[in-house]
Amino acid sequence: MSQDCLKAILLLSCPDQVGLVSRISHFIFEKGGNILDLDEHVDPNNGNFYIRITWDMSHFQIPQTEVKEAFAPIAKELNATWQLHFSNEIYNVAIFVSKYDHCLQEILWRCELGEFAINIALIISNHSDLKPLAERYQIPFYVFPITKENKLEQEEQELELLERYNIDTIILARYMQILSPQLVHAFPNQIINIHHSFLPAFVGKKPYSQAFERGVKIIGATAHYVTKELDEGPIIEQDITRVSHRDNLKDLIRKGRDLERLVLARSIAYHTENRILLNGNKTLIFN
Amino acid sequence: MSQDCLKAILLLSCPDQVGLVSRISHFIFEKGGNILDLDEHVDPNNGNFYIRITWDMSHFQIPQTEVKEAFAPIAKELNATWQLHFSNEIYNVAIFVSKYDHCLQEILWRCELGEFAINIALIISNHSDLKPLAERYQIPFYVFPITKENKLEQEEQELELLERYNIDTIILARYMQILSPQLVHAFPNQIINIHHSFLPAFVGKKPYSQAFERGVKIIGATAHYVTKELDEGPIIEQDITRVSHRDNLKDLIRKGRDLERLVLARSIAYHTENRILLNGNKTLIFN
Amino acid sequence: MSQDCLKAILLLSCPDQVGLVSRISHFIFEKGGNILDLDEHVDPNNGNFYIRITWDMSHFQIPQTEVKEAFAPIAKELNATWQLHFSNEIYNVAIFVSKYDHCLQEILWRCELGEFAINIALIISNHSDLKPLAERYQIPFYVFPITKENKLEQEEQELELLERYNIDTIILARYMQILSPQLVHAFPNQIINIHHSFLPAFVGKKPYSQAFERGVKIIGATAHYVTKELDEGPIIEQDITRVSHRDNLKDLIRKGRDLERLVLARSIAYHTENRILLNGNKTLIFN
Amino acid sequence: MSQDCLKAILLLSCPDQVGLVSRISHFIFEKGGNILDLDEHVDPNNGNFYIRITWDMSHFQIPQTEVKEAFAPIAKELNATWQLHFSNEIYNVAIFVSKYDHCLQEILWRCELGEFAINIALIISNHSDLKPLAERYQIPFYVFPITKENKLEQEEQELELLERYNIDTIILARYMQILSPQLVHAFPNQIINIHHSFLPAFVGKKPYSQAFERGVKIIGATAHYVTKELDEGPIIEQDITRVSHRDNLKDLIRKGRDLERLVLARSIAYHTENRILLNGNKTLIFN
Repeated sequence: MSQDCLKAILLLSCPDQVGLVSRISHFIFEKGGNILDLDEHVDPNNGNFYIRITWDMSHFQIPQTEVKEAFAPIAKELNATWQLHFSNEIYNVAIFVSKYDHCLQEILWRCELGEFAINIALIISNHSDLKPLAERYQIPFYVFPITKENKLEQEEQELELLERYNIDTIILARYMQILSPQLVHAFPNQIINIHHSFLPAFVGKKPYSQAFERGVKIIGATAHYVTKELDEGPIIEQDITRVSHRDNLKDLIRKGRDLERLVLARSIAYHTENRILLNGNKTLIFN
Repeated sequence: MSQDCLKAILLLSCPDQVGLVSRISHFIFEKGGNILDLDEHVDPNNGNFYIRITWDMSHFQIPQTEVKEAFAPIAKELNATWQLHFSNEIYNVAIFVSKYDHCLQEILWRCELGEFAINIALIISNHSDLKPLAERYQIPFYVFPITKENKLEQEEQELELLERYNIDTIILARYMQILSPQLVHAFPNQIINIHHSFLPAFVGKKPYSQAFERGVKIIGATAHYVTKELDEGPIIEQDITRVSHRDNLKDLIRKGRDLERLVLARSIAYHTENRILLNGNKTLIFN
Repeated sequence: MSQDCLKAILLLSCPDQVGLVSRISHFIFEKGGNILDLDEHVDPNNGNFYIRITWDMSHFQIPQTEVKEAFAPIAKELNATWQLHFSNEIYNVAIFVSKYDHCLQEILWRCELGEFAINIALIISNHSDLKPLAERYQIPFYVFPITKENKLEQEEQELELLERYNIDTIILARYMQILSPQLVHAFPNQIINIHHSFLPAFVGKKPYSQAFERGVKIIGATAHYVTKELDEGPIIEQDITRVSHRDNLKDLIRKGRDLERLVLARSIAYHTENRILLNGNKTLIFN
Repeated sequence: MSQDCLKAILLLSCPDQVGLVSRISHFIFEKGGNILDLDEHVDPNNGNFYIRITWDMSHFQIPQTEVKEAFAPIAKELNATWQLHFSNEIYNVAIFVSKYDHCLQEILWRCELGEFAINIALIISNHSDLKPLAERYQIPFYVFPITKENKLEQEEQELELLERYNIDTIILARYMQILSPQLVHAFPNQIINIHHSFLPAFVGKKPYSQAFERGVKIIGATAHYVTKELDEGPIIEQDITRVSHRDNLKDLIRKGRDLERLVLARSIAYHTENRILLNGNKTLIFN
């Protein structure tokens, strides 16, 4: 029952009906799996059932490579959307940055500490400023300068690179470009962005300037999945901090940096620990 | 699957073993119950399993009055500690107060709003100050002045009254007396106290004065179950607020009032919605 | 130097220049006033100076009724906008409500506790639901039902009433009507509204529904002065609380109630303790 | 009136009397200084006056090197404790660490960003683990292994080193040794420690284990000046984060790291921006 055993993590949603927990937990039980964690939710608005269930694989009678196949018939019967993960799999991640280093620095530092189960395969930037930081951590760093003219072309090369590195998650760590639909489309709910405002307030450009102009007493940061609509994707995590009339724009930016780092870090943990289920344009965070 | 149907709520803890969720959920399923909510936890430190599970009774084949009996054999087999509640049962509550009205006012107001599923059967006080407030809400108000000499005697009369009213939960809403062991013993984990500090800091008397003297930058409030050791019982809920050198003792008391009200209110909700499981001297809050 | 002495409170803003603090503090000193509190701010964006200064009137050589006249020449010279208040003056307040009682209840309760230095002269509502609560506290309660057709007419009668009661501050305690420009115009920066969202997110109607639909992880409340643009007036205070996918719309409304009460209460304290200075469409809160 | 001009910062406390603000501000005014920021406080408990006042030196008629001498007679007359700082002076800092890198990493990163006006002259450790991190930022790193036997001797060498480097502030960035009285005595109110609990709860060793055992719902971190009594020095800053029964000891340590970093960073900013005044064993933070 050690927490460091090999674990299976099932994320599943389907129309609600009587007996779902019993059905799924029985499958795990009869194959010798001990459930370590179970979290479920029924959305009364759409009648859907959502579950995240984790079990110890130590004495499970089905080998890791065959669990998916074994569970598939049940999932089909339930008309479920589902993913199966294992604790020995780690996400292969690309980080996109521009010139600000704080979010990148935070991710690199937490990786070194072992907080994230990810492999940072490469860093892509439209500027070369953060190359030294990437080198410090010995991570490949690619520069693709972006202009209005070359954007699509550059992104095509980026896509090739992402494929070559077998990337499954993209983190926009204060990347100051809007991704084209083609790139977004290639990574559905696999691109995490940190927006430096309390969405949906201050969508788009220069949110700190907008907040400063409006005279808010609290500023925020929002991590969300990237969709085709700018800053409209499913929100993963938000947090806030107080400001006052003594804080000028520079102070908002400084205070906001601490928010951005923490909110992005938490959202990466939720994503890579497979704690996120989608319900339309909303997230369910099972933590 | 309406949220307003009759619901059963099972709280159970037992030594962990393979198949517990399957076993319990199968019991519910085979009798026609639809699970609405399930939260479980395994404590790796003591190997115990904890679960709170809620199901819709609408089509359950066992009548409400017989569910307990039907489940008992399973619980016995699992060597479990357990409680079974139903959403149409409400707690019968006694509130103890002294002179401060804010916690009492808050509870009365939330009751009126329908936030708590409780019946406030009576209010007991060692002073008569809050009698008008009790009358405003038409709740019986009993005064038992307490001195060193008469304490045990008065508490015996209080106990008789609590029995007569069939009380199952006591809320100490800034009651300024320490209960004797006999009273505490009669209501194990059924007495909720609000302590006006961030426990375990500032145990005992005049916590705001202690906090003021120490020069803390944050003050707190703590709701806990009352045990024989003063301010040492299982913590249910805590919250804090910022203070500065500009705040004198009076300001701490004023700011603290808002904390006390909210923290006590949340702990009453957890208790009366049957969201609390005990793990030694700690609580698990399933919310 | 007691905190309970008669105090003068000067709020002043003017173009910044060398010697302002010296000039103002010298005026107070030479007349025998002891400064109890001084807070100032220079906005680097517009070069304006803002000050709130409080002094003990015990040994002040100018009688309370003549201080204004004595200071006027200095203010004129500095080209200042200014107000002078005294701690023995209290605001004469009208509260507007509809059907929700929580904000009204909170204000009445805090008044009774002595937290606010205000006189609640009357309560105005478009519904009669809260009449009993007003009666409990023996405050005149006037009902003006509002329809599209009679709105201006009814507001004219309200204005007459406000004049008759010599009202200087209006609190919209979840008043569900939008005030017409005439009423807003008659009370510039004297009408405080509580909006049940984290402005500027979710302007307008049904902000909790909007928040629920967007799937935010944090909800908020905002107290602001009412101007002609809906929900666009100077923000006085904001606060937030966390929500999750487990919270349905009803939970957001319930959690939001606690926010609304606290945020409105704080903004009333700031206003009535004369801690607010205006800088364009922003507030400076000197607390 | 630019924020980047040379500024003088006066921190002063003295027995309260009529005319103090006038007196001090007049001194600044008559020499041509424009006050940029002024914050004052009178403690009603001990009758002391505290002020922090900042002015623009651009047109000040006294050269920087002579301001201290010019102001001394006034300070003497007021029987004041005072310090005078200038915005072009930066603190010369020694950081003490053991094996944990998070606080050191945070300080180094913020220095690089220009958030702190400090020079990190050297890093002292009882272990060599963080040498590579120091080298990355090209800061001298000295190792002094500590045993019961050699402690005083090693600290004497450290003291020599601190003198040689002309150190005026010491930051204990999770340094796991208790300093001897001689070292503490040599740097009165110049040593900042980060304690990983919400003081005064969980003084001493293993506060996260203590917090875990007690079952608190909130954990904290506290930055304070080091005095001879362990964890009893003046508190500079505190912050907290929520935990639940799902968080094991490892999670508390992980969540606590983020608190420690932020609380220590804020306290360094307060100290090095000369925003801290002492009132007995308490701090006044003028921010």
